[in-house]
Amino acid sequence: MPDDRQRSRLRSDERRAQLVALGVATLVDEPLEDITIDRLAAAAGVSRGLLFHYFGTKQGLHEAIVRTARDAMLHATEPRPELEPLARLDDTLRRFVAFVAEHRGTFHALVRGASAGDADVRALTDEARDENARRVIAVFLELGHEDRPLLRSALRSWVAFVEEMLDEVPTHDERSAVDLTALLVRSAVAVVGALDATD
Amino acid sequence: MPDDRQRSRLRSDERRAQLVALGVATLVDEPLEDITIDRLAAAAGVSRGLLFHYFGTKQGLHEAIVRTARDAMLHATEPRPELEPLARLDDTLRRFVAFVAEHRGTFHALVRGASAGDADVRALTDEARDENARRVIAVFLELGHEDRPLLRSALRSWVAFVEEMLDEVPTHDERSAVDLTALLVRSAVAVVGALDATD
Repeated sequence: MPDDRQRSRLRSDERRAQLVALGVATLVDEPLEDITIDRLAAAAGVSRGLLFHYFGTKQGLHEAIVRTARDAMLHATEPRPELEPLARLDDTLRRFVAFVAEHRGTFHALVRGASAGDADVRALTDEARDENARRVIAVFLELGHEDRPLLRSALRSWVAFVEEMLDEVPTHDERSAVDLTALLVRSAVAVVGALDATD
Repeated sequence: MPDDRQRSRLRSDERRAQLVALGVATLVDEPLEDITIDRLAAAAGVSRGLLFHYFGTKQGLHEAIVRTARDAMLHATEPRPELEPLARLDDTLRRFVAFVAEHRGTFHALVRGASAGDADVRALTDEARDENARRVIAVFLELGHEDRPLLRSALRSWVAFVEEMLDEVPTHDERSAVDLTALLVRSAVAVVGALDATD
């Protein structure tokens, strides 16, 4: 059983996590730069001092919010290693499309709003693009494509293409989600095909 | 002949343009957010007051710098209407590749740094992406593709792909510039092909 100090620590961690979750929820309708210590404290009904205690600065608060939103996205789209490469890409993108459909405001903020702001916040969203690039690069290496800088750059750039598509193209129903997923898979294959014609 | 007031106005416009040009040049090695009224005044050897007179605020200065850099890029890559659609796309992209090779720091700032910062500055770089999207959409409409939202979204997203590629892939010589251009043209065709398979 946890002792008193552990219990108090758990409560503190939970409280912090609740504040971050409220920040992420706020991100749905509001750009990151509008989320301040003052406003989040008011919305949560806690003191500004408590937010300063947890996050130090507005910057620290923003980093915590973006990191949590980003990790939720990466977790929801974690590739299933047991699938064949292209089926794995399709499965990952299908869950990406579903994530964006459910959390459109948050995703928009991650892709657009948070790529604004300060360098530390931007580094967090860049890491997400890097991780998505690693995932799709692994797919094409497994398919037998040669590992070279141009393949890596093209697939990292393709992730930028996907981010824009997900941000722009609404999916109203299961059918449109399936179509968008299939289009994104084909576009990855097409970009790699355009690359192979280079040599 | 210009009268005194016109001459004085001309000198004032020129002086402002020179300060903006110095700002654009600074953008080559420094992120936009580091360019302040104080530092630009010191670098130009003019008073802070003069910069405030021309630009009002640091924000106004940033907007003037980004607008000038962006317009230079759009001007350097203006499509030649006399060319056939795909030849025009190739020609435009070739000049885009050359522009980035010559002004890599500025381009990086336009794509990455300036997409940070405040909403007004971001709107300027968004307009550049819109213009580049319009140009490539015109190419594919002329080639006979149906005008539909998905085509427009895919080509606008392809512009994001191109921006990343240009930012990431160095071109050392004429040959690598030609190869990169050809790859970008093929990738546009490939993405549109992936789209047509959707129906």
